[in-house]
Amino acid sequence: MTDRAQHDAMANAIRALSMDAVQAANSGHPGLPMGGADIAAVLFSKIMKFDPKAPNWPDRDRFVLSAGHGSMLLYSALYLLGYEDMTLEDIKNFRQLGYKTAGHPEYGHADGIETTTGPLGQGLGNAVGMAIAEAKLNAEFGRDLVDHYTYVYAGDGCLMEGISQEAISLAGHLKLNKLIVIWDNNNITIDGKVSLADSTDQRKRFEASGWATMDIDGHDPVEIEKALKDAQASDKPVLISARTTIGFGSPNKAGTSKVHGSPLGDEELAAAKKQLGWAYGPFEIPAEILDAWRQAGGRGAEARTAWTERLDATASETRSEFERRMRGELPAAFKPAMAAYKKKLAEDKPKKATRASSQDALEVLNGAVPETMGGSADLTGSNNTDTSQTLPYSASDYSGRYVHYGIREHGMVAAMNGIALHGGLYPYGGTFMTFSDYCRPSIRLAALMGIRVGLVMTHDSIGLGEDGPTHQPVEHLAALRAIPNLLVFRPADAMEAAECWEIALERTQQPSLLALSRQGLPALRTEYSDENLCLRGAYTIWGDDNADVVLFGTGSETQLAVEAAKELTEEGISARAVSVPSMELFHAQPDDYKASVFGKARARVAVEAGIEQGWAKLLGATGRFVGMTGFGASGEISALYKHFGITTKAVVDAAKAQL
Amino acid sequence: MTDRAQHDAMANAIRALSMDAVQAANSGHPGLPMGGADIAAVLFSKIMKFDPKAPNWPDRDRFVLSAGHGSMLLYSALYLLGYEDMTLEDIKNFRQLGYKTAGHPEYGHADGIETTTGPLGQGLGNAVGMAIAEAKLNAEFGRDLVDHYTYVYAGDGCLMEGISQEAISLAGHLKLNKLIVIWDNNNITIDGKVSLADSTDQRKRFEASGWATMDIDGHDPVEIEKALKDAQASDKPVLISARTTIGFGSPNKAGTSKVHGSPLGDEELAAAKKQLGWAYGPFEIPAEILDAWRQAGGRGAEARTAWTERLDATASETRSEFERRMRGELPAAFKPAMAAYKKKLAEDKPKKATRASSQDALEVLNGAVPETMGGSADLTGSNNTDTSQTLPYSASDYSGRYVHYGIREHGMVAAMNGIALHGGLYPYGGTFMTFSDYCRPSIRLAALMGIRVGLVMTHDSIGLGEDGPTHQPVEHLAALRAIPNLLVFRPADAMEAAECWEIALERTQQPSLLALSRQGLPALRTEYSDENLCLRGAYTIWGDDNADVVLFGTGSETQLAVEAAKELTEEGISARAVSVPSMELFHAQPDDYKASVFGKARARVAVEAGIEQGWAKLLGATGRFVGMTGFGASGEISALYKHFGITTKAVVDAAKAQL
Repeated sequence: MTDRAQHDAMANAIRALSMDAVQAANSGHPGLPMGGADIAAVLFSKIMKFDPKAPNWPDRDRFVLSAGHGSMLLYSALYLLGYEDMTLEDIKNFRQLGYKTAGHPEYGHADGIETTTGPLGQGLGNAVGMAIAEAKLNAEFGRDLVDHYTYVYAGDGCLMEGISQEAISLAGHLKLNKLIVIWDNNNITIDGKVSLADSTDQRKRFEASGWATMDIDGHDPVEIEKALKDAQASDKPVLISARTTIGFGSPNKAGTSKVHGSPLGDEELAAAKKQLGWAYGPFEIPAEILDAWRQAGGRGAEARTAWTERLDATASETRSEFERRMRGELPAAFKPAMAAYKKKLAEDKPKKATRASSQDALEVLNGAVPETMGGSADLTGSNNTDTSQTLPYSASDYSGRYVHYGIREHGMVAAMNGIALHGGLYPYGGTFMTFSDYCRPSIRLAALMGIRVGLVMTHDSIGLGEDGPTHQPVEHLAALRAIPNLLVFRPADAMEAAECWEIALERTQQPSLLALSRQGLPALRTEYSDENLCLRGAYTIWGDDNADVVLFGTGSETQLAVEAAKELTEEGISARAVSVPSMELFHAQPDDYKASVFGKARARVAVEAGIEQGWAKLLGATGRFVGMTGFGASGEISALYKHFGITTKAVVDAAKAQL
Repeated sequence: MTDRAQHDAMANAIRALSMDAVQAANSGHPGLPMGGADIAAVLFSKIMKFDPKAPNWPDRDRFVLSAGHGSMLLYSALYLLGYEDMTLEDIKNFRQLGYKTAGHPEYGHADGIETTTGPLGQGLGNAVGMAIAEAKLNAEFGRDLVDHYTYVYAGDGCLMEGISQEAISLAGHLKLNKLIVIWDNNNITIDGKVSLADSTDQRKRFEASGWATMDIDGHDPVEIEKALKDAQASDKPVLISARTTIGFGSPNKAGTSKVHGSPLGDEELAAAKKQLGWAYGPFEIPAEILDAWRQAGGRGAEARTAWTERLDATASETRSEFERRMRGELPAAFKPAMAAYKKKLAEDKPKKATRASSQDALEVLNGAVPETMGGSADLTGSNNTDTSQTLPYSASDYSGRYVHYGIREHGMVAAMNGIALHGGLYPYGGTFMTFSDYCRPSIRLAALMGIRVGLVMTHDSIGLGEDGPTHQPVEHLAALRAIPNLLVFRPADAMEAAECWEIALERTQQPSLLALSRQGLPALRTEYSDENLCLRGAYTIWGDDNADVVLFGTGSETQLAVEAAKELTEEGISARAVSVPSMELFHAQPDDYKASVFGKARARVAVEAGIEQGWAKLLGATGRFVGMTGFGASGEISALYKHFGITTKAVVDAAKAQL
């Protein structure tokens, strides 16, 4: 076979598997894999560095299918390249329950799926994070251990989503020149031609943010290969505009939105195979073509062996540190540092905003855990996310540990997801909690993927005061607790802030979010305990177990629960205050522990400066809630708490009303 | 006074009021009003068309302070121009509870505040909607009645947020040439210099999306005036990059982030006044300068009078239609059309997905209500948002009624908010419900402002099937119900879809969101009723009032509640099914109605293909929930419902377990 014939056959193998799988599933997106097959064939067989026999090799190139609906492009390639856990059986059962081949690529389903994509633009944001991580680890461990590219396959949709602007302007600013984005420039979206809704000059737009750009025929393997090699040599991130035909090969549907998200149908599928010169049955890949793919898959073994030799030759301390980081294990120094810090807090009893307590905890953490990488969406001084160790990460110094993400909450969290997915680093980043809405799609994906990122959400209630209702979270605690697998913490004081951070780092399969106060708070946990009490989710912070009244509080309102418990006790009504730093962790406790927290109380009250939704399980049928029922207002903090009736007296009254 | 001296005095009046107000509040953002005072003075005194004596004049130019933290710029100008409901007392009580002068501009607090801003980039998105509305109404009613500009004052933060890309690419595509954005190009953000986090060439970026751009000295009134006049004549939307000094006038803090978000302090304030040559005490505006401002405020009276004369001279049918539209009243044809349609549904009993039923209702609505303006974020065929009446709105035909918003959920809802705020139109727009996360910040603002927009959220559960967990809403119903003042509907069939749309249009002070199924659903409401039963929020859809078991269902799961009630009844257990199209409306019912819905049931079950959060108030202490506990999966719909245990049998068992 000529080079070109072999290329065509390899590309058609992707097209055929994709058409067949979508047809068998009777749903899915054939247009992208058919249009992108030439690019994928070149990229995977000639350009990218990876080894299907060692799919998690740390120094592999990363591939992100940002246009996740084209999942069959990735699944086909993984199978053809010889990734062992992607079988023909999986391909045949595309989109069926229990198979790895979900409608969109799901991280964790199979090796080679570097991130979960589908919500458009997210993959591009993740890739920026991966490239940030690569540059950071390269700066830290040297090019012998870390030196790889991040490739993105993005569609028109990815580039239209706002998150793309945050991602590309950040990447351009940071000069992440090992980030290469291939834009599947096919001029088609679901509604029809791109020109229905957009007329942006994308190359000019990317260039405005410091990218190099190229324009190629996305069906010409020679142009594709040259562009990718040129891109590798760029000193800027690169956008390759690859002109493609969506549904390439389909005689009647190619180049139209009809082929975007529906099976071709038996007749058109047969016609497409004929036009492509693909004379094989469903899911049939001739041995010769499979061999060519498997040989391509084997290309990386040599590079990996050489890398392993370099790792073996690395000084043992560096090597073990690198390996620890890549395993995602915390250093031995972590636990003792946290214990010592908790002892100090028990002595100092600091009266501080929890955002400041969080910063104090981060100072300890960042000292003990070198892989933390902080940042903020332009609210560093307000989020208290920097510490003495976190020098800026910048284009002129990739060894830094603090990313000035800019006013880009969405791009920040998407990048943090990418940093976590890359491995070797623990990203945390901050914004105001009300702006968790701006990055919610990325928070959801962190939870869905089960990856460890730290979300620092300060100014967590009307307690932020004068900035008013746009900046005051009201529904956010409920809305964030609603996201499955997201750990939401609302520490009450410095001790709890330390414990919550400790849990956040130890939970490697979950993102954690800390809701933190702007306003100063008293120390409520003034005794040292070896046990991390916050791990219980809720625990008695004041009062005795047999009290008639139990008062739940979180964060800045825990003090109201404690004060109310004291007042009731003084009045002869036995009362107990329970701090609830994490509802999720409490709900996961054994029944007997939960029962012990409720005790024999005849009255229950919860106080939280948010809406009631989500509290019912703790309040039961008769308990009462003291909190918000609508949006906040602009005003001085004490005036607001009084105005909205979130006071010690309100808690006391709500308890008495039940007795 | 020379022109320049008068200009300086007028600009300094804004600076002085802003400095004094921030100082008195001891919080706020003096930097922007001080930096933007020259621009504001020119814009309000020489360029913009408005009349403080008729602040809601429909043909006024709109001004949007997208950088809402600079609220004192707007408040100062409104007071100085003579808007009667912005008093010096309000200015003196900046950021205090109960005053109009909230930390960020709040729509509805005072005339001249055209939208609520603060969350960055939103105002820019709103302004695109206002310009869309202007062009649409201009095309419909002619330039005699509608011919005005929309001005935006945007900061670096607005331009860094992803939503800005969605807004500008949409505006550029639609060639909204009466949209003029002034970029307060001061090189400073909260963390420091813009160069810490961004190096985008903004002019190039805007030009890439079809904008004209200019660059001016933002402190030179001659340049400012010329640029604004040139911008008015442009055939494209215009970005004016206005180089300014943040905190202009402050001798020690100007040009730094120190002056962004903190009071100057008494000493620096005095020094600034000295440097500016402002010899007056706190909140003191000399009569001569106030007169100059008031004269500027009076400029528009003549234009408004002329406009009123043109309106008076308009054919009475057109005039009354224009006035009805501007009052936001529905046409007389609306109610009868809906009643006739409901009668037809009772006869036809269509078995359809609610997204298709919604489209049928829209066909009726769009026929009866000419001010509806539909759209979708590139999912027209999936969201079923188009009807026979909604021809495309485009740069070549602004009379259209359907906006192809592109893959821009966030920009879409922000623009819809702007369309609603402009007046004269009712915007609705669609996306997949999981992507409500992408536009959540704008949904929240619609709720906070209390404006009427229609959010069409299809594919509302695991019922969407094979696209998998990224596309399957699980926590979204709970998270959306958590937003105060947002009406969330989940109709069970075509009749309910019609009723929910009827309510959505009638509720002028609230946004409404319809959660709609992808999958086909049976007709459950097969009798015509004059009463809109969905207005009750929840009502008995099957079975008798004294049943022992009550089963709540919403949307696609209502049929499971009905089937389970029938099964239980057949087994000799009296059961009743309650449809819950809107929790918010149900919670707002009188207690006796709510009690009648619960009846004497000894067992309660709710079934909804989402998480349990939010159901407690309907379930009480012992009720059970059948739904989701985590993320969904990719698979065929019936396999998914079975896998996740959302079945008639599960509902029946949950009821029996309580008896």
